[in-house]
Amino acid sequence: MSGEPLLARLPHVVQWGDCDPAGIIYYPTYYRWMDAATWHLFAQAGYTAARIRAEQVSLPLVHAECSFVRSPTFGDACVVESTVAVFGGKSFTVQHRILRDDGSELATGREIRVWCRYEKGPGSPLRGEPIPEALKALFLSTP
Amino acid sequence: MSGEPLLARLPHVVQWGDCDPAGIIYYPTYYRWMDAATWHLFAQAGYTAARIRAEQVSLPLVHAECSFVRSPTFGDACVVESTVAVFGGKSFTVQHRILRDDGSELATGREIRVWCRYEKGPGSPLRGEPIPEALKALFLSTP
Amino acid sequence: MSGEPLLARLPHVVQWGDCDPAGIIYYPTYYRWMDAATWHLFAQAGYTAARIRAEQVSLPLVHAECSFVRSPTFGDACVVESTVAVFGGKSFTVQHRILRDDGSELATGREIRVWCRYEKGPGSPLRGEPIPEALKALFLSTP
Amino acid sequence: MSGEPLLARLPHVVQWGDCDPAGIIYYPTYYRWMDAATWHLFAQAGYTAARIRAEQVSLPLVHAECSFVRSPTFGDACVVESTVAVFGGKSFTVQHRILRDDGSELATGREIRVWCRYEKGPGSPLRGEPIPEALKALFLSTP
Repeated sequence: MSGEPLLARLPHVVQWGDCDPAGIIYYPTYYRWMDAATWHLFAQAGYTAARIRAEQVSLPLVHAECSFVRSPTFGDACVVESTVAVFGGKSFTVQHRILRDDGSELATGREIRVWCRYEKGPGSPLRGEPIPEALKALFLSTP
Repeated sequence: MSGEPLLARLPHVVQWGDCDPAGIIYYPTYYRWMDAATWHLFAQAGYTAARIRAEQVSLPLVHAECSFVRSPTFGDACVVESTVAVFGGKSFTVQHRILRDDGSELATGREIRVWCRYEKGPGSPLRGEPIPEALKALFLSTP
Repeated sequence: MSGEPLLARLPHVVQWGDCDPAGIIYYPTYYRWMDAATWHLFAQAGYTAARIRAEQVSLPLVHAECSFVRSPTFGDACVVESTVAVFGGKSFTVQHRILRDDGSELATGREIRVWCRYEKGPGSPLRGEPIPEALKALFLSTP
Repeated sequence: MSGEPLLARLPHVVQWGDCDPAGIIYYPTYYRWMDAATWHLFAQAGYTAARIRAEQVSLPLVHAECSFVRSPTFGDACVVESTVAVFGGKSFTVQHRILRDDGSELATGREIRVWCRYEKGPGSPLRGEPIPEALKALFLSTP
């Protein structure tokens, strides 16, 4: 495989309720943003919410982390830039970079997730599956 | 039927992340509390989370409202007091009263919900059902 | 005064974390959306987050309610349409209508808020003020 | 200094709204829990919300991470066990362990935070300060 990794960009405005009494972003907000950014990245690669439901896919996490550089405040326009940085056997790492619209870096994070399916429909146990090569190819931007 | 309505009391401490840059509770927090209080009331009446799952019950809302009297801040100990105020044919009204531990009233709210079941297991469509008399009886405290 | 009320439109995609185990929107999400929509409406009328901070304005609520018609699921594109429906002496009512992008109505809600300022800077007590006519005029769309 | 690190235990019941359409905890919930657990640990060490406000202390994060072992579902009773694992010059690491009430480990996480004060009251810039020895001593449980 070759090509650049597919980069998804998900904009957010920092809402009043995303902030805490210090007047800056309440830090778990970043994880809500990263989760949404991963689904957005998958949608951009062809795995929309509808397809994920239809194929009974789920993407549970084994690890998530974020380092915080500077804190946006209410009303700041931001963007989460996301790529799949690493594909393992059944797991993969999504890399996130969170920027303010003046270009300054706010935070960087990553999530390690497992490619899973429900064994017998929604609500049934999840089972990890080897990530198909065809799936990996979706996360390369066409040259 | 007779007897006093069953009253459930669910305590909350106002967390840092429940507050907004004004330093007071972010108002949607009250709705999270009321939702949790309704499930807590049902658990106290015998409808625990496990039983709700097993019987494939769901309690979707048709209306929710809240009036705000005074605003707690970070660290305040509060309680949500909840009762079923009205049972209709398929719907019912849960009344909530939110107090600080000094006894002062913070807010009053109510939710109108429908007694529903999943037609064919989790994820399938929901269908409203007439509320059984046996269910109503669970929401009376024994004298 | 004359003219049509200013209408603000704030789009949202229903995120994975906005939904509950029933697979539909978790209802307090609507209140987060309405709160954000009010700030968005104010920004569109000229009261941006920066100006609100600078003028030490706050808009605490006395009441909020929402009626739920149908429930969106993960990935649905929605919009909140908001206007100031009524101006009182110190309070005002924001009307919200929440639609899916297929045009179907999901919910309607309203918030009653007070026009307030911090007496002595951030963190100091809030005081309601008569709503200036000049402010009201900002919420009319120019013909 | 000697003695065991002070251990705070903050219970949580997994609420309906803490879960996602997969029926398990929505992972950013863990960060809300860890944040609350840190404030709880500080309160237990004598730094209550009231004292934090009075002394104009803030504890911004530079990093947070969490590894997920198994996922609780709606209604599960859990506890977050927290200690200060490391004190640096101006920063410190809070270690969190999240357990279900059957004793099974759900997740482990840590936050790196800075000991800060507002230079000139709430809303003014934050400045990191060397962590006083007296503060560190508060996080040792008395033998």
